Amino acid sequence: MNFPEHKLIYYIQKWVDLSEADAASILAAFEPIAVKKKTQLLAPQEVCRYVYFITSGSMRSYHIDQKGTEHIYQLRLENSWISDLESFFSQKPSKYYIESMEDSTLLRISFDRLEMLYAEVPKMERYFRILFQKAYINALQRLNSTMWDSAEERYQDMVKENCDILQRVPQTYIASYLGITPESLSRIRKKK
Amino acid sequence: MNFPEHKLIYYIQKWVDLSEADAASILAAFEPIAVKKKTQLLAPQEVCRYVYFITSGSMRSYHIDQKGTEHIYQLRLENSWISDLESFFSQKPSKYYIESMEDSTLLRISFDRLEMLYAEVPKMERYFRILFQKAYINALQRLNSTMWDSAEERYQDMVKENCDILQRVPQTYIASYLGITPESLSRIRKKK
Repeated sequence: MNFPEHKLIYYIQKWVDLSEADAASILAAFEPIAVKKKTQLLAPQEVCRYVYFITSGSMRSYHIDQKGTEHIYQLRLENSWISDLESFFSQKPSKYYIESMEDSTLLRISFDRLEMLYAEVPKMERYFRILFQKAYINALQRLNSTMWDSAEERYQDMVKENCDILQRVPQTYIASYLGITPESLSRIRKKK
Repeated sequence: MNFPEHKLIYYIQKWVDLSEADAASILAAFEPIAVKKKTQLLAPQEVCRYVYFITSGSMRSYHIDQKGTEHIYQLRLENSWISDLESFFSQKPSKYYIESMEDSTLLRISFDRLEMLYAEVPKMERYFRILFQKAYINALQRLNSTMWDSAEERYQDMVKENCDILQRVPQTYIASYLGITPESLSRIRKKK
């Protein structure tokens, strides 16, 4: 077991207790990959074949609308997950890109392998139940905040929750993630 | 077993196979309640003690901001779930109201009882994993649509997905759920 694999077990164990046999089964189910900055792991019309755990680096998912404008969907640093779950779980074509923002290492698991893992290690079902539950709560909070808070409040929330991301991710991506123009973001940042 | 209880099993079985013993354990864990229209099941500062499955009627959750404006968070008809999951899973005070929009019947389960049920019927962990996964995907779609689509497109999506809700829920609630004014909603509806 090398370092990135241990990290996965460490983060899963924050939520569920794993035996050594469980940990071994989980590690056997994930495949490590390394990608250079700006590598695409998914493009529109492709089926999203994997769920990825980022062990180092950072990733984003985005889509490009009919006018050619890029919209950021997710921004993720190491020790978090990225995928297009809609495409992954339906095994239908995606509308999104997934791309590395830095040189990155990831652990990936395919749809069939994940189903096998749920059968082998039922605690993974519990882990993902908790993970999706938290992700759902966060998405609803982000939705409410988008509808009801000002862009400045949303930026300040992001500073509070994830200061690291602001240092490592281009400002244009942050603006798109917040649903505002880069000029508005720049004005908000100057006010601080 | 009466009719509303059967419904719960029917909807769970759409996603996981249950034995008769599983179904019996699940039904034993839920408690039926009946409420009149405009009954509050949760108010801000209270801990959300239950997850509710709506067997008949309809519910909404909302919050009231510092200016006194009401914002709708969730609109739910029969055969779906409602709760404040953030408060429920953290067992910390809620920021939301949950209220019936019609006379309604519900099945409720408490935090401790749900944890027991996961142990008794591990397939419930799988069911809620799938439920939260779908809810997360929907919340992200709603978020993207709020940031990037027009109010008219969002209304049309709602018409396509959930025509029934538009007949049964006051227009002011639909407008708030979409994050627009009742006047904008009225203009959009006239265009059709």
